[in-house]
Amino acid sequence: MAGSTYGKIFQISTWGESHGAALGVVVDGCPAGLLLSADEIQVYLDRRKPGQSKITTNRREADQVELLSGIFEGRTTGTPISMMIRNTSQRSADYGEIANCYRPGHADYTFDAKYGFRDYRGGGRSSGRETAGRVAGGAIAVRLLQEFGIRVTAYTLSIGPVKIDRDKFDPSVILTTPTGMPDLDASAMAEAYLADCMRNYDSAGGIIECVIEGVPAGLGDPVFEKLDANLSKAIMSIGAVKAVEIGDGIEVSVRQGSQNNDPFRMKDGKVIKTTNHAGGILGGISDASSIILRAHVKPTPSIFSAQQTVNRQGEDMELSIKGRHDPVIVPRAVVVVECMAALTIADALLLNASAKLDNLKKIYGR
Amino acid sequence: MAGSTYGKIFQISTWGESHGAALGVVVDGCPAGLLLSADEIQVYLDRRKPGQSKITTNRREADQVELLSGIFEGRTTGTPISMMIRNTSQRSADYGEIANCYRPGHADYTFDAKYGFRDYRGGGRSSGRETAGRVAGGAIAVRLLQEFGIRVTAYTLSIGPVKIDRDKFDPSVILTTPTGMPDLDASAMAEAYLADCMRNYDSAGGIIECVIEGVPAGLGDPVFEKLDANLSKAIMSIGAVKAVEIGDGIEVSVRQGSQNNDPFRMKDGKVIKTTNHAGGILGGISDASSIILRAHVKPTPSIFSAQQTVNRQGEDMELSIKGRHDPVIVPRAVVVVECMAALTIADALLLNASAKLDNLKKIYGR
Amino acid sequence: MAGSTYGKIFQISTWGESHGAALGVVVDGCPAGLLLSADEIQVYLDRRKPGQSKITTNRREADQVELLSGIFEGRTTGTPISMMIRNTSQRSADYGEIANCYRPGHADYTFDAKYGFRDYRGGGRSSGRETAGRVAGGAIAVRLLQEFGIRVTAYTLSIGPVKIDRDKFDPSVILTTPTGMPDLDASAMAEAYLADCMRNYDSAGGIIECVIEGVPAGLGDPVFEKLDANLSKAIMSIGAVKAVEIGDGIEVSVRQGSQNNDPFRMKDGKVIKTTNHAGGILGGISDASSIILRAHVKPTPSIFSAQQTVNRQGEDMELSIKGRHDPVIVPRAVVVVECMAALTIADALLLNASAKLDNLKKIYGR
Amino acid sequence: MAGSTYGKIFQISTWGESHGAALGVVVDGCPAGLLLSADEIQVYLDRRKPGQSKITTNRREADQVELLSGIFEGRTTGTPISMMIRNTSQRSADYGEIANCYRPGHADYTFDAKYGFRDYRGGGRSSGRETAGRVAGGAIAVRLLQEFGIRVTAYTLSIGPVKIDRDKFDPSVILTTPTGMPDLDASAMAEAYLADCMRNYDSAGGIIECVIEGVPAGLGDPVFEKLDANLSKAIMSIGAVKAVEIGDGIEVSVRQGSQNNDPFRMKDGKVIKTTNHAGGILGGISDASSIILRAHVKPTPSIFSAQQTVNRQGEDMELSIKGRHDPVIVPRAVVVVECMAALTIADALLLNASAKLDNLKKIYGR
Repeated sequence: MAGSTYGKIFQISTWGESHGAALGVVVDGCPAGLLLSADEIQVYLDRRKPGQSKITTNRREADQVELLSGIFEGRTTGTPISMMIRNTSQRSADYGEIANCYRPGHADYTFDAKYGFRDYRGGGRSSGRETAGRVAGGAIAVRLLQEFGIRVTAYTLSIGPVKIDRDKFDPSVILTTPTGMPDLDASAMAEAYLADCMRNYDSAGGIIECVIEGVPAGLGDPVFEKLDANLSKAIMSIGAVKAVEIGDGIEVSVRQGSQNNDPFRMKDGKVIKTTNHAGGILGGISDASSIILRAHVKPTPSIFSAQQTVNRQGEDMELSIKGRHDPVIVPRAVVVVECMAALTIADALLLNASAKLDNLKKIYGR
Repeated sequence: MAGSTYGKIFQISTWGESHGAALGVVVDGCPAGLLLSADEIQVYLDRRKPGQSKITTNRREADQVELLSGIFEGRTTGTPISMMIRNTSQRSADYGEIANCYRPGHADYTFDAKYGFRDYRGGGRSSGRETAGRVAGGAIAVRLLQEFGIRVTAYTLSIGPVKIDRDKFDPSVILTTPTGMPDLDASAMAEAYLADCMRNYDSAGGIIECVIEGVPAGLGDPVFEKLDANLSKAIMSIGAVKAVEIGDGIEVSVRQGSQNNDPFRMKDGKVIKTTNHAGGILGGISDASSIILRAHVKPTPSIFSAQQTVNRQGEDMELSIKGRHDPVIVPRAVVVVECMAALTIADALLLNASAKLDNLKKIYGR
Repeated sequence: MAGSTYGKIFQISTWGESHGAALGVVVDGCPAGLLLSADEIQVYLDRRKPGQSKITTNRREADQVELLSGIFEGRTTGTPISMMIRNTSQRSADYGEIANCYRPGHADYTFDAKYGFRDYRGGGRSSGRETAGRVAGGAIAVRLLQEFGIRVTAYTLSIGPVKIDRDKFDPSVILTTPTGMPDLDASAMAEAYLADCMRNYDSAGGIIECVIEGVPAGLGDPVFEKLDANLSKAIMSIGAVKAVEIGDGIEVSVRQGSQNNDPFRMKDGKVIKTTNHAGGILGGISDASSIILRAHVKPTPSIFSAQQTVNRQGEDMELSIKGRHDPVIVPRAVVVVECMAALTIADALLLNASAKLDNLKKIYGR
Repeated sequence: MAGSTYGKIFQISTWGESHGAALGVVVDGCPAGLLLSADEIQVYLDRRKPGQSKITTNRREADQVELLSGIFEGRTTGTPISMMIRNTSQRSADYGEIANCYRPGHADYTFDAKYGFRDYRGGGRSSGRETAGRVAGGAIAVRLLQEFGIRVTAYTLSIGPVKIDRDKFDPSVILTTPTGMPDLDASAMAEAYLADCMRNYDSAGGIIECVIEGVPAGLGDPVFEKLDANLSKAIMSIGAVKAVEIGDGIEVSVRQGSQNNDPFRMKDGKVIKTTNHAGGILGGISDASSIILRAHVKPTPSIFSAQQTVNRQGEDMELSIKGRHDPVIVPRAVVVVECMAALTIADALLLNASAKLDNLKKIYGR
């Protein structure tokens, strides 16, 4: 309730600031008996960590996870899993000049308005570094979902004006391109575009798409806890996301019902949909086809060109941001989208266990 | 937690099915001392109720609210406010033929998958009628926000291909046009478009925009409980919404940082933004400029033309839906968007009361 | 969160005041597929309703439950079950004189302190009538537990100085004695004691015991959500309860470990405890032996003899309460204890469904 | 919801096992602007830590707290405060022999029943060491309450048959006696009694009392979130507590209303009660007199004499526990009771901020 906890049963609580001693997450409610190693979590953190290419900040963080509790003899025990990542590359000096003014597009002003003051070093709690905790927790959700054949895959759909060509979609390159694009050509073009942005002291936005395959029908609840409602919240809670689409999303408003409805058909003894405009969710509940969502990400607000702003004394001023900043948020946010989606699906999977009497009878043997 | 409750402190719990005895809502956590009458709530229900024009279903429901608790001598007492609306126009016979099959675009299949069976009469709990409870509860949130000078206004931005002309924006006609558009010309064109859809046994989608003015800076929390994250969940939890945008939304992905950042300036001793691409929220916290969001609504899935589907016995079949259905969901959903937004802001307003020590000292007098 | 909701998955939200139009409850999270009739709920409400003997208030309320949603073709649908009980015997005139002063032992003063004013008619929301909603909801929890062989039985252990003789324990008379005692002789003595109290314009307290049989091992969580912690909250939330014991309760403080530990032994291939000092819960988790708890209930604060108090104008005064009041709360609270216990166990049963991977694999078939 | 989180707004999430790498707590929802140092927290942890006298286990733990986030320039920032305590004295070898059997009075059996296996080293998550996180979090709640003149004081009322003499009550010795008793003579007698218990390879129980002074009237909510209900849960969630009393507690059942009601009177322009049988809470809401509660604590289940039990293979066996164990839990639990009470009051203080419109107008200036 206090704002740093996500999920109802499979629950993560993140903590930590950009320039504090450490960041971390407590995962509570992970079912007991799941095989889990720190290495599996580290793989996800490595995808998020900075300093991996020309188009990410050159701040160097090992982002090494320390597993502190909740695992015994290689398995989850059902008790809280605490993970910590030490901050090692804080250069607070870079932030001295912005302690007293409000960076446009950042949360500096609103933090001051809410709390009376703020940890201004690197954005404090509102830094993108906060997502390290989400990724560590999300990696465990991903592991849990694997047990049930559920796979979550996110990738970059566009950066600035450069979109992938769906005909060239190659999932095998998502983790190798610096952009996170599943299309080598588009990725190269996006890199060129970003180089341009950087030369102009400017930054770019983009779109991330996420596909969740293997979700059984029945996850999500009919009214406020619709699966798409929770996915939207999860994705919109990632800093810089300004729009979320489910399935065909923004295209539905100009369609007619006959174009947008997905017909049902029987196939191999199962109910399937012959199209998937809905993106795998009907009435807030998963329908066993792939869940598809997209996040629209704004350009990095930290740009090196001069900007108008005000200081805490209430004076107009001009600000030129220094320091180390990604020219685009999208590539490093891909794994965050993946993790937030996985956390949402894992939570729905657990909640759904008690949705009908038959489920409970399977467990309690009546 | 069980799925029919929304909000953390200002909380609504809705109940009821399309063709049950009644629908209702319990509002818990409304502060004591608010002047409130049943008439003020009825005004909002009347905006949602069916049978008001050619472009809404001709099902006739009085949708008369009964206030059962929580008010004493015209003021809220701080205890739960229970409200009930009797169903009066159930014609279950219309739904007999669909008891056994799954309507495309509806929740019939997913309900069966989740719960093992369903109340098939009019969609049961997944009917749009469920939103009556949200509107009754939301009307109280609107009343509370008025005390703090906060105004929530939603309207139709487009129906199918017909968009309003922002230069002709006239808020005074929102409640008078059958489309909910703030532009008489566009509204007339949209009506013509809908008449076309109906002739073709088809339906239309559209976009709803919502503006929230007068919100103080500081509402919302920095991480998972970002104000935009909660607004997204609230809006996406309305059936048929497939995408949500905050501020400039989907446009940000092709912008550069220098175009998208909103400069700060001092004006009359206050910090203001000279543009509002962000839509009133920075880092998940309100910045005192107008909050702007848009909901993309799919076309009504109940269409009269023949559709492919399957029945509960696992056989392919063809379905022609009968009964009474809106050719477009948008106009009646406008007030639902307004109410879900108001509920979200009211909850954030209450939660923020304990965000800093100074606030508490104002209350407890230290 | 707003205070009128109990439970995490199996959740009830109650509403209503003593002298309002109606009282009720919304049950959300009850698994789909449970056979349930209004008659089964009415049986529990009838046990709580007033006017049934000399030792309960002569206020006459039918307390007839109306089932408004969530049931279809005799089974729960998994959606909220709304129930309402109309108030029919409000004689507000009786309360006119106490509108302006604070009855000792009641919540009048604290309501005014918290909310600024109060619905003074019959105690408003703090009336014992509020428990009608708990009982209607609890009756459904009882029904659910039956499916798993779990039985909840509460009874009166003592009224004032009159205790039952455990050697004469006869569960068959619990529902027939006006005291709720499982001992006819003790019940007769308690009735005589109460007659004395009434003659002296005074009232009595007592103790309620509750036994829950058939609970599988494993319910409850290790730290804050211990099963005994939740039972304590549930029972202490019943007005007039001032102490809660689990198992041997207050006797443990003078014992030594060797006397208090319950030895484990194998019996018929199962782990059993040869004694049950712990009352069926170890480390906050059920151990499959009977869960035992006791509630200590204060004497009815509404007494007819003169009492010292103050009025809202801040003047000392003397008050003689009139109206209709039970001389003892215990007999009518027995069913409330039973229902709160059932709700707590039902919620733990549902939550435990996702505690280990094996449980989930039974449901999702991997 | 997942069981390791306590509180609604002022919220703690604890993690860690007895013999893992570390234990800790995340405090979320603490208002911004509170002056706070690690030293203030360490004082509370030092009161709980082992190895301080003959009557506590001779396990030596520094229990040094590391403050990892949420503090900036000496003040809380409103973001999560993460604290960690490294385990330094794990001697897992001591526990090898109990890996395979169930210690009577412990959670070994129920953990296996719930999760399928357990971290058997030192009780894992069910160890009393888990309370270190509660104490670190509770120390912050204590600091917050100080700002509002609220003081929480707990002490030992009895150990085994030895009770304090209320006429000799001396709060200044609570922190100096090894028993936590506010009575030097009783404490000496209790030490002698404990020496006896230890000689007999046995252990003792006792009672802890807690007094909370300076609580403003109005905290707590009328129905399920009664202040006494939440205090009961908080206290009963401490391992080994088997009964909780509020105010006169178990004595009320034999009283008559005229003896138990607390008369109101005016004093210095304020409403006061001339007695305090109720223990500071009426109808679940604080009445501004002192809140009083008592926890009944069972004898330490780890005793060195032989006990009957079973092993995981389902065989009867005899067990003699070795290792380092407190002969009585009470003295070290005193500070835990104090902290759980402080956390509960702090949360109620924050929640009450939005209970009435007037409070909100003080904050938002309308």
